[in-house]
Amino acid sequence: MSELEQTLQLLRAALGDAAVLTGAAINPRHHSDWTRHAPACPAALLLPRDTAQVSAALRICNERGQSLVPQGGMTGLAGGAVPRAQDIALSLERLDGIEEIDTAAATMTVRAGTRLERIQQAAAEAGLLFPLDLGARGSCQIGGNIATNAGGNAVIRYGMTRDLVLGLEVVLADGRVLNLLNKMIKNNTGYDLKQCFIGSEGTLGVITRAVLKLAPPPGAQSTALCALPDYAAAVALLRRLQRRLGTPQAYELMWQDFYRLGVSWLETTQAPLAEDYPLYALFDSAATAEALQDALQGAFDDGEVIDAVIAGSQAQARQLWKIREATGEFPNRLQPLNFDVSLPIGRIGDFAERCRQRLDARWPGNRSVYFGHIGDSNLHLTVDCRSLPQPAPILEVEELVYTAVGEMAGSVSAEHGIGLLKREFLHHSVSPEALQVMRQLKLALDPRGILNPGKLFD
Amino acid sequence: MSELEQTLQLLRAALGDAAVLTGAAINPRHHSDWTRHAPACPAALLLPRDTAQVSAALRICNERGQSLVPQGGMTGLAGGAVPRAQDIALSLERLDGIEEIDTAAATMTVRAGTRLERIQQAAAEAGLLFPLDLGARGSCQIGGNIATNAGGNAVIRYGMTRDLVLGLEVVLADGRVLNLLNKMIKNNTGYDLKQCFIGSEGTLGVITRAVLKLAPPPGAQSTALCALPDYAAAVALLRRLQRRLGTPQAYELMWQDFYRLGVSWLETTQAPLAEDYPLYALFDSAATAEALQDALQGAFDDGEVIDAVIAGSQAQARQLWKIREATGEFPNRLQPLNFDVSLPIGRIGDFAERCRQRLDARWPGNRSVYFGHIGDSNLHLTVDCRSLPQPAPILEVEELVYTAVGEMAGSVSAEHGIGLLKREFLHHSVSPEALQVMRQLKLALDPRGILNPGKLFD
Ligand SMILES: Cc1cc2nc3c(=O)[nH]c(=O)nc-3n(C[C@H](O)[C@H](O)[C@H](O)COP(=O)(O)OP(=O)(O)OC[C@H]3O[C@@H](n4cnc5c(N)ncnc54)[C@H](O)[C@@H]3O)c2cc1C
Ligand SMILES: Cc1cc2nc3c(=O)[nH]c(=O)nc-3n(C[C@H](O)[C@H](O)[C@H](O)COP(=O)(O)OP(=O)(O)OC[C@H]3O[C@@H](n4cnc5c(N)ncnc54)[C@H](O)[C@@H]3O)c2cc1C
Repeated sequence: MSELEQTLQLLRAALGDAAVLTGAAINPRHHSDWTRHAPACPAALLLPRDTAQVSAALRICNERGQSLVPQGGMTGLAGGAVPRAQDIALSLERLDGIEEIDTAAATMTVRAGTRLERIQQAAAEAGLLFPLDLGARGSCQIGGNIATNAGGNAVIRYGMTRDLVLGLEVVLADGRVLNLLNKMIKNNTGYDLKQCFIGSEGTLGVITRAVLKLAPPPGAQSTALCALPDYAAAVALLRRLQRRLGTPQAYELMWQDFYRLGVSWLETTQAPLAEDYPLYALFDSAATAEALQDALQGAFDDGEVIDAVIAGSQAQARQLWKIREATGEFPNRLQPLNFDVSLPIGRIGDFAERCRQRLDARWPGNRSVYFGHIGDSNLHLTVDCRSLPQPAPILEVEELVYTAVGEMAGSVSAEHGIGLLKREFLHHSVSPEALQVMRQLKLALDPRGILNPGKLFD
Repeated sequence: MSELEQTLQLLRAALGDAAVLTGAAINPRHHSDWTRHAPACPAALLLPRDTAQVSAALRICNERGQSLVPQGGMTGLAGGAVPRAQDIALSLERLDGIEEIDTAAATMTVRAGTRLERIQQAAAEAGLLFPLDLGARGSCQIGGNIATNAGGNAVIRYGMTRDLVLGLEVVLADGRVLNLLNKMIKNNTGYDLKQCFIGSEGTLGVITRAVLKLAPPPGAQSTALCALPDYAAAVALLRRLQRRLGTPQAYELMWQDFYRLGVSWLETTQAPLAEDYPLYALFDSAATAEALQDALQGAFDDGEVIDAVIAGSQAQARQLWKIREATGEFPNRLQPLNFDVSLPIGRIGDFAERCRQRLDARWPGNRSVYFGHIGDSNLHLTVDCRSLPQPAPILEVEELVYTAVGEMAGSVSAEHGIGLLKREFLHHSVSPEALQVMRQLKLALDPRGILNPGKLFD
């Protein structure tokens, strides 16, 4: 019997035959995630039902030196959940369900395999809000959100996933179960170990449960779209809104190229604002329409805003958001090479300029569009590969963009993580000493290196 | 020459004679902190001026196995900065100053020895707010605040120190300098290493610089004091305010015993509300007086509030706050044994009840008072040792309180940390597996155990 067969026999004995699948029994969605990177059928798929089974599986794999890839909803954009043929995949999908909503504490305790959308709905039913929100809400799992420290639409106001997690239960590589299921806002009793696992992309432990922080439900909101003269005005307007009206629920900046594209894809032909302004800011605010108008009048007077439209109805607000949501059409209408970078907020404008100049110099006629959640220091830029020489020089484009990011002290991954796809670019944002310490941490918690090998810095 | 003398010689060669003090040259404030715990003159005091000197000092001490205690402003309340006679103290006081305020990014880069008050002032001068605030602001250093993950007055709205730190520079035990000086809100490039050092009480590295997150300046605020029928009403009122007016700037709950004491110490004899209500909530809100009145009317109608007073002027608001600030008088007027615990928000009322009953059963006639930042899950309780048999059975009282905390899944330290004083109680809040992992982390980053030995779990 092969080494692998022996391992599978032990796993079947511990988890039951139905929880250990191989070959054609494995649904292809476990082969690769949204990146469609290096599809390979894993050596086996484990479907544990509870923490004890996860623990048993890890203990066995650790003893036998068998590598293991944790899998959530497989919606990751960095290839972190993609297995190699020799890996065993461990899916959390059967470890799902909401265990408790504590309305006094405003917390929810959930199993890691619970889908984000279900958590959002349960919070709303309890009269509260779980503010994490992203396009993959219907498929991604809270365990995957935590393992990638996902960002999404509400970061400017509520923070990253890290800021929404109060406690965790984690199974370590050797099968030890670490109970960090804290419910308190304040708890200074030694190292805050949960922080190690948030954003660690499945390389330090398997998350099995979490205590989430819920927020009061959001009230009504106003939506506005403003045309701006330059990038400095975009920052000034944001700071003005924060001072006058409180931090907006969202603040999305679109460069002219993006705005034109978004408008051209609208069903109506009428653009809400002319298309020849340098920049456009779209935001939601909890302020009343009058307070918003007041704040915008000040911004006009100071030259921060050239033109603006405030949505008069929910339908109009949705229409304005449609322009920003053109990104949802990218996979269908472009051949997009997407970047998810971050930079100190004041430098994003210069970065976009520098990046565009270098792309234009290297590949004249290329098409790139820029938009960002600048309040979070996050810029997304998309290059349409159809506008590049064929076959598209993807690695070269990436190297050009990430080099510019590194020069300006930015991050090669704002929210999607490193996974498989950005390993070779990590050095642009992480110092050699920091990389060393990451390896030390990995060695301390997973000395045999069984958890998600080949990812992150490995 | 003794081992110690050899070490000191190396240190003098690296840092200069003026930065290595011994014996009577050491100001006694470096002997012990506010806890007045086990005063001992350290074997030497180092006063490095920059990161390179900190690095040199640690490298030498690590090579020679010499233990080292990082010292900030010496205001800690858990004994974390207290040296033993064989330790060398390393004070950050000369490594101070503000390096940059980036108003676009809303960040400030500071050296670790900078006093909190100076940071608050510099932020205000730049039209921004650094929201961390606590009674020791004039003496404590930002490095100490970060090393203890300090809480303070504004946690309910702005979070703990952890939530205000974007980046760090840390010198590791072996002298390696770890540059984690990130300025971005979003940055998912591998493990978020800075989290390991925040709240680690000087046991994993010496913090030398930090990038802090600044907030928009706060607007005007209204202050109100409400009498409440029971603890459930206190939670309901808080949630109502959050829903209706946004999260208050502060929400302080006082039990009847505390309120009476606070009122009795006022210079005026007039209590703002009668003294026979079970509980009193004091809060600041950014809402207008009308909006506040509106929200309180709803609370009256629903029986959450029995009586209330809204401050009509700043002077009146200050007068209301004086009652809460009776805690500042505790050291002078009581013989206080202070607790800083946290519990799931819904259980704080029951905990206070349980704790009081057990104290009364064990020591009839003892005097204890209760007050808390319940929105942060934080309860402070103070036992007046003069009301206990003499000599006061301090350890027994602590064991009683912390046992009750453990039973209700609370934390023995909400914000002050473990240091020396709470080591033996840590097990009430931290599982054996978590303790094991903390030790693994310590071993990985400080294998020779030179950083702050004898503290936390050591
Ligand atoms: C349409 C779309 C929109 C998106 N929008 C955003 C966005 O706005 N912001 C953003 O940040 N991201 C976004 N993403 C990417 C985002 O990271 C993922 O959607 C999500 O957070 C990953 O969850 P998942 O359950 O699918 O994890 P997977 O893709 O299955 O796994 C992701 C990583 O986490 C690890 N992992 C998963 N579960 C666990 C666990 N229980 N324990 C330990 N490790 C685990 C895996 O090993 C892998 O490394 C988007 C993706 C899509 C497809
Ligand atoms: C009047 C008063 C009011 C207070 N109010 C509050 C409050 O409301 N909330 C609250 O949370 N705390 C409060 N505290 C306690 C609080 O923890 C400290 O005041 C402060 O955070 C510690 O800062 P410090 O510079 O004095 O640190 P120190 O007391 O010098 O040190 C504290 C710990 O941090 C370590 N340390 C210090 N500097 C560094 C560094 N640069 N690198 C690594 N480790 C370091 C030390 O080794 C020690 O373990 C109060 C204290 C006082 C005296």
